[in-house]
Amino acid sequence: MSSQPLAENLKPLDVFSAIADDLRQVESAIEAALSTRETMLADVSTHLLRAGGKRIRPALVILASRFPGVELSRVIDVAVAVELIHMATLVHDDVVDNATLRRGRPTVNAVWNNQVSVLTGDYLFAKSFTLLADTGNNRVVRLMSEVVREMSQGELAQIASYFDVNQTEEDYFKRIAQKTGYLIAEACRLGAIMAGASEEQVRSVYEYGMGVGLSFQIADDLLDYFGDEGTVGKPVCGDLKIGILTLPVIHALRHSPERDKLREIIATRAIGDAEVERVKQILEAAGSFEYARRKAREHIEAAVRALDGVPTLTTRPALKTLADFVVNRKF
Amino acid sequence: MSSQPLAENLKPLDVFSAIADDLRQVESAIEAALSTRETMLADVSTHLLRAGGKRIRPALVILASRFPGVELSRVIDVAVAVELIHMATLVHDDVVDNATLRRGRPTVNAVWNNQVSVLTGDYLFAKSFTLLADTGNNRVVRLMSEVVREMSQGELAQIASYFDVNQTEEDYFKRIAQKTGYLIAEACRLGAIMAGASEEQVRSVYEYGMGVGLSFQIADDLLDYFGDEGTVGKPVCGDLKIGILTLPVIHALRHSPERDKLREIIATRAIGDAEVERVKQILEAAGSFEYARRKAREHIEAAVRALDGVPTLTTRPALKTLADFVVNRKF
Repeated sequence: MSSQPLAENLKPLDVFSAIADDLRQVESAIEAALSTRETMLADVSTHLLRAGGKRIRPALVILASRFPGVELSRVIDVAVAVELIHMATLVHDDVVDNATLRRGRPTVNAVWNNQVSVLTGDYLFAKSFTLLADTGNNRVVRLMSEVVREMSQGELAQIASYFDVNQTEEDYFKRIAQKTGYLIAEACRLGAIMAGASEEQVRSVYEYGMGVGLSFQIADDLLDYFGDEGTVGKPVCGDLKIGILTLPVIHALRHSPERDKLREIIATRAIGDAEVERVKQILEAAGSFEYARRKAREHIEAAVRALDGVPTLTTRPALKTLADFVVNRKF
Repeated sequence: MSSQPLAENLKPLDVFSAIADDLRQVESAIEAALSTRETMLADVSTHLLRAGGKRIRPALVILASRFPGVELSRVIDVAVAVELIHMATLVHDDVVDNATLRRGRPTVNAVWNNQVSVLTGDYLFAKSFTLLADTGNNRVVRLMSEVVREMSQGELAQIASYFDVNQTEEDYFKRIAQKTGYLIAEACRLGAIMAGASEEQVRSVYEYGMGVGLSFQIADDLLDYFGDEGTVGKPVCGDLKIGILTLPVIHALRHSPERDKLREIIATRAIGDAEVERVKQILEAAGSFEYARRKAREHIEAAVRALDGVPTLTTRPALKTLADFVVNRKF
């Protein structure tokens, strides 16, 4: 459990290597949380563990907890709980999206079926709340239960907005806050709460997390246009094809000279490869991708500014590097 | 909020009418818990509220809380939380079972789709944990998170056991405890905990609840053979057709002289109306239905005996009547 201050100008991998001991503890605790005598659940758990993940959320819990005097053992369980919630929503989202690939590997509902995905997700949610209850801190239970509610509402809002050409940028930001922002912000907040930070410090790391989360989702939505299937691990422009309109499209629907054409294409609700190419041309010409990149940068800048509110947090340099990494990531 | 002791020899409806004020409060609180500005979720909520339900679990929370000096306002929220968990599992089970009817009405996944069912269930789980966290009592959060884990494990065990002719009576009882027993027992336990009952009293009402829960599920499994679709609200012998083997079948697989024939029918994994009739004959001849009825009665008797441990609980007569009702119910 390293507790020395982290050096400036860390690379993303360095950020994680500086807390590598903590993350190893998180990993063992996740394994322990998923261990069960129920054969089918054990198989699904093994599948989920092998699928891995970047563990960004537990890393954020730990990085946001490094205030003077923190007892790290109290933080690990919360980091695990946050990752279990994330895993639960992924497993349930795969049912929601009818996804067959996640991070380049078959999803639980592809290997087993929707029923197994639903129940495994429920198990993971419940296990997470057991860990949170065991902290003895009711506030962390309450906050996390609110996040899960926001996440499910965000996903429902997304389903209700498929192919909806009248949605606004405000709708988009509300939805991505619900889908992604709240959980990442909460990861940071819970780290600070478990470290006994002041309310002002807790607010600052929450704000940092929200900026990172929104930026992360905007970048993720851009990757749907520019990532390649091998790297991103899911079909390219899959969002657009099933009707999820993200920031570049919403921008172009308002600002492109070809917005009527764009509306028309989306209204057909049948978007194939040819339509995808046409949409990309319209968005490029309208500067819509550049607009989305700018918004992502703005939110990252706000995130980094929020770190001014936590001068005693020893991991500020690492959090800054992580913020840069999120907005510049190519996967 | 009536607090007078309930009279002996109540009929089931009387049991509920004696706590009618409390149940009305529960109903308003459920409505409040489901109220949301998210349009789709609001529609689903209205659908769920109209579908109704017997509200047996919140009634048990209230009935198990009537110790001298209980503050009923602290109990209502827990009663609501328990019912929200129940509703969440029903909505998720409908995905699991691919059910199209529940209580004679179309299910959420039939009216909307699996995706909406998954997310609505997640929302209900999360809302329930918010209410439990708001009690300020970490123990109730922890206990309920364990129940949800047991329930999802029980459903997974059921899926793993479809058409499995080698499962034992012990497997069956473990599974129905997980599916049904734990939540009903927990409803009782949480009522007593919120009333500040002693650990011995808490154990007694838990034991009562477990007996009622197991008996309830055995009776429910019998109704799959004998209920008619109009009353039960779902297709008759639906369990058997999809491969869920319940106590009568498990009994006959061990004790019927025609057990080889029975194994053979089940092994085809193609059980139509003709096979159902043949199976029913075999079970009837082996006394398997009668065996299941006897087991249901034994668990109810154990439940009623457990009430000896709570002499100061004013609702004991009502709980006895409710126990009789569960084992004799025809719907």
